[in-house]
Formats: sequence, structure tokens, C-alpha cells
Amino acid sequence: MSLLVVGSTALDTVHTPSGDSVEGIGGSANYFALSACHFGPVNLVGIVGEDFPKTFLGRLQSRKVDTTGLQQVRGQTFRWEGVYDDNLTDAKTVSTCLNVFEGFHPKLPASYRNATHLFLANIDPELQADVLSQVERPQVVACDTMNYWIQSKKNKVVELLPRVDIFLVNETEAKLLSEEATPYRAAMKILEWGPRVVIIKRGPYGALMVSRNAVFSSSAYLLADVKDPTGAGDSFAGGVMGYLYRERCGVDWGALKKGILFGASLASFAIEGFSVEHLESIDFTQVLSRYDFLVKMLALS
Amino acid sequence: MSLLVVGSTALDTVHTPSGDSVEGIGGSANYFALSACHFGPVNLVGIVGEDFPKTFLGRLQSRKVDTTGLQQVRGQTFRWEGVYDDNLTDAKTVSTCLNVFEGFHPKLPASYRNATHLFLANIDPELQADVLSQVERPQVVACDTMNYWIQSKKNKVVELLPRVDIFLVNETEAKLLSEEATPYRAAMKILEWGPRVVIIKRGPYGALMVSRNAVFSSSAYLLADVKDPTGAGDSFAGGVMGYLYRERCGVDWGALKKGILFGASLASFAIEGFSVEHLESIDFTQVLSRYDFLVKMLALS
Repeated sequence: MSLLVVGSTALDTVHTPSGDSVEGIGGSANYFALSACHFGPVNLVGIVGEDFPKTFLGRLQSRKVDTTGLQQVRGQTFRWEGVYDDNLTDAKTVSTCLNVFEGFHPKLPASYRNATHLFLANIDPELQADVLSQVERPQVVACDTMNYWIQSKKNKVVELLPRVDIFLVNETEAKLLSEEATPYRAAMKILEWGPRVVIIKRGPYGALMVSRNAVFSSSAYLLADVKDPTGAGDSFAGGVMGYLYRERCGVDWGALKKGILFGASLASFAIEGFSVEHLESIDFTQVLSRYDFLVKMLALS
Repeated sequence: MSLLVVGSTALDTVHTPSGDSVEGIGGSANYFALSACHFGPVNLVGIVGEDFPKTFLGRLQSRKVDTTGLQQVRGQTFRWEGVYDDNLTDAKTVSTCLNVFEGFHPKLPASYRNATHLFLANIDPELQADVLSQVERPQVVACDTMNYWIQSKKNKVVELLPRVDIFLVNETEAKLLSEEATPYRAAMKILEWGPRVVIIKRGPYGALMVSRNAVFSSSAYLLADVKDPTGAGDSFAGGVMGYLYRERCGVDWGALKKGILFGASLASFAIEGFSVEHLESIDFTQVLSRYDFLVKMLALS
């Protein structure tokens, strides 16, 4: 059993109503790993340039994140800059510098190929497919994407879906991909393309999980203030997949519900700080405390 | 024990992506009554003109809605016309003709004054206060409002709140009233003004209920298609208050949670048809079926 994430590692500059953060640690793989590591070791595949802070690699390792699969190459690390308005939902991209990410062709270390739980974070769907082919016999494959790939390579996104168990996507992107007007119709259309479960991420409103015969709609953990929503979705996915991994579960509906509550807990910590600063600072007792709060909240008697 | 609603009775013209509906039965009191009547008799206070369809009064009465308090006066009934865009959330008002509603000074029939459960639907906050004063000893007072009153008579809305147990308001209006950026901060600020519970209605995302020491965030009942969102909030309130009334409850947190799920069930029926057509056509078995669905959905084991 092992848990593997493939995704971006970045230096993010963000501007939110709470302030600015310049070149903080970011990227889907990092958020996912710092979230999922609460449930067991995580193998990380990504790429960074020479300028990526070495100290952060040590911090990942101290949290049971294996970075053997993190390529370190000549050049600059992927950079992204975005602005959030008062609603703190979708960011407006100011600039994207792919840098070393442009030449990213993930090749899994031999020791990663027996992964049972695989998260294909938001990267080029062709790379996602290629990584998936390198894993011997994954038990649970989850996958994320974004509007950029839906617009530029929709057929590649759709081609990947029959090989995916759990497809995570935000509400706007689900509608864009499916060309349907409501989240339920969007989820049903995406299910026809292959995945067993679709999880539509709805930011501050929570998540909606749909399979062919069941629905679960859950709330986000309510916060008085949000500092930086970047990484919420990947931290959420880390909770979902981390929990399935810890429970040695396949695509089990009951486990997925609990995984979603862990995901909501972890995402709430991620967005209370800029970059990964707050997500990185918490221990499992804190994660469990917000999970327990959500469990008690949902109980009707 | 009795359940009383005071609010508007209207003829609504709406335009949605599903089509148009011209001068259909509308108004907060009607939606509330047709929803709450599943739990017991409802006393309705409102005003209509000579042009209001008499047949509808009979239909209300057949559903255990007492219309002794519905004033029928010379002139035209209140009319509202609105347009919903593809998101089916907030309507853009095309026109409002107050007509007889302008002279509405609700005076409760003697038989209504012993109401235990009172819903002050969205009308002028000064009228809401006046109605409240006419009720001898209400056990649960719930109240709604809208941006128009928040902008034009904010002090009157705030003055009313210490006399209210449950304040229902949509998310945009909660932020407008409280001048806070997040729903949680908005709810906490409004609680300081007096009500024991604030329920923030979030349309397709459900509702958020906050008291001084507890939070409950619930989902809407997921629909493939929505025809006309008008009346969703009042139908929802009808479920909440109807359930409290049936259970002979005061402001009980556990009962409120279940009431919110009944509210979600009823609101989902209301928005599946134009005007009150679909809400009016359902029986309690159908209401219970969607309630049960939500209860099972929330169960974690």
C-alpha cells in the first residue's frame, strides 16, 4: 500500500483582501501532500528549479512526504501570481511562468510504481494519463483538472475519465466540461464518461459527491475569516485520499463521506494562512477536532 | 397552539430560462402557508384586491389554511415582475406595483391573537412590529426581511430583532445588514442584536444556522432542474416553522435541524414549478420522502 501524488510544485504570489504573499510555497502536489501526510506516508512526484527553497524539502520529509520523485533541475521553479477579490472564490491570474514545469515529463521512481492510492493533481491530462500508465495496479485513482485543460484539451480530459475512480472538479469547471447548467446534471454527464464518483468542489459551500446511485452534499468548515483560498481544493483532496488510504479502502461510499469531512477540515486550515504556512503548522489533533465538529454537526439526534 | 403567518399575497410575473409565467399566485404568505400546512392548520394574514382569484382562496382553505385574516379590499392585488438569469439565484425586478398592499395595516382577527408560532414574512419592519404586538404570548417568533427594508429602514429591522427568536435572511442580505464580509461574522453580528438563532439562506447551497454556541450547515435538496426559484425562502421557512409547530417545540436546536431539512424538502418542490403550482400539488408523503433522503444522506454510518 502506498499513496502517490503527481502535480505541480510552485512559488505563488497572491493578493487577497487580507494582504499579499510573495513567492510562497505552492502547487497542487505540495498542498495535497501536506494534507494527506496526516494519514500516512506520501510519495510526491513533481519538478522544481534551482531556486526552490531546499529547507522546504526537509520540511516535507519531516512530515513523511517522500521527495525521491521530486525532480530538481536547472532553471526556475514554476511561478503563479493571482488576485482574489472580496468574495475569495476564483482567483484572477496575473501571470503564469511555467519555467521548468514546461519540460515536466514525470517518470515514477521504481519504488512508487506499486502505489495503491493515486492522486493525479491538476496538470496536463496527457501527463496524467502517462503517469497512470506507470502505476502497476492502483486501487483508487483520483484526478483533478482545471478550466485551462478543459478549454484546450477537453478530449484528453474526457479520454482519461474511464481510467479514473474519483473525479474532483470545481462547480464552474464541472459545468464547463459537461456543458450542463446544474451541478447535478453536470455530475451525471461526467459519470457517463467513466468515473465512479464525481466530487464537485463548491468552495465556501462545501462539496457535492455524486455516484450513479447516491448523492452526498457536505458543508465546508465555517470560518470567520479566510486569508488565502489557494490550495483549498488540493488540501481537500488530500483529506479524502489520505483517509481512504489510512482505512485501506477502495471506492467505498461511507469512507468517502468521512473522507470529505476530513478534506473539509484540512482545507479550512489551508485557507487560514497564506501559502502552506498554516496547513504546515497543524497537527492531527487539530484536524480531528474540526472533523469531529462536522460529524457532530451532521448528527440529527 | 396555532401557527400564524403575516406577509404578502401577490400576482407574480416571472421570466426564467425555463419560460415565463404571467400573474401566477405568489407572495410570501402564500408560499409559507402552502408549505407549513403539511404540519397543521395555518392562519394567514394578508391583503388582496378584487382581482385576486377567488378559487385560490378555496384551495388554501382545502389545505387547512384559514383565510379569515386575508383582507379583501377594493383595488388591484400587489403585482411583482422579475427576471432570473441562468444562475437562477437573485431575481432582477422589472416592476413592482404595490396596489392594495400600500394601504396594508394588518389587524389580527381575535381568534389569531393566541398564536404560539408566528412567522413575520418579508413586509415593512414597522408592520412586522405592529403585528407582533397584537399576538398575546408567542412561543416562537420567526422573521424574514429583504434588501429593500435593510436599505430603507435598517434601524427598524434592527429594532425588531430583540423581539424575534429566529431571523431568516439570505446571504447577500445578511452581509448587507451586518456590514460583515463572511456569513459567520454576519450571523454573529446579527445575533448580538437579539435573535436567538440566525438562519442564512444560501439558495442552491442550502442554509446555515447559527446560534451563540452552535452551528448547523445543511444542503439544499439537489435537483436536476429548477423552473422558478420564487418563493423558495418562504417555502423553506414554512417547513421550519411548520415542523416546530407540529412538534410543539420552542426554539429547540435539534428540532430546528430537522425543520431545516423539511424546509429544504418543501423549497425543492416549490422551485420545480412556476408560481405555487408544484408546491400546491404535493402531498405529505412526497415531502417526507425528500426529508428522509436528506436524513439518510447526512448519516455517516
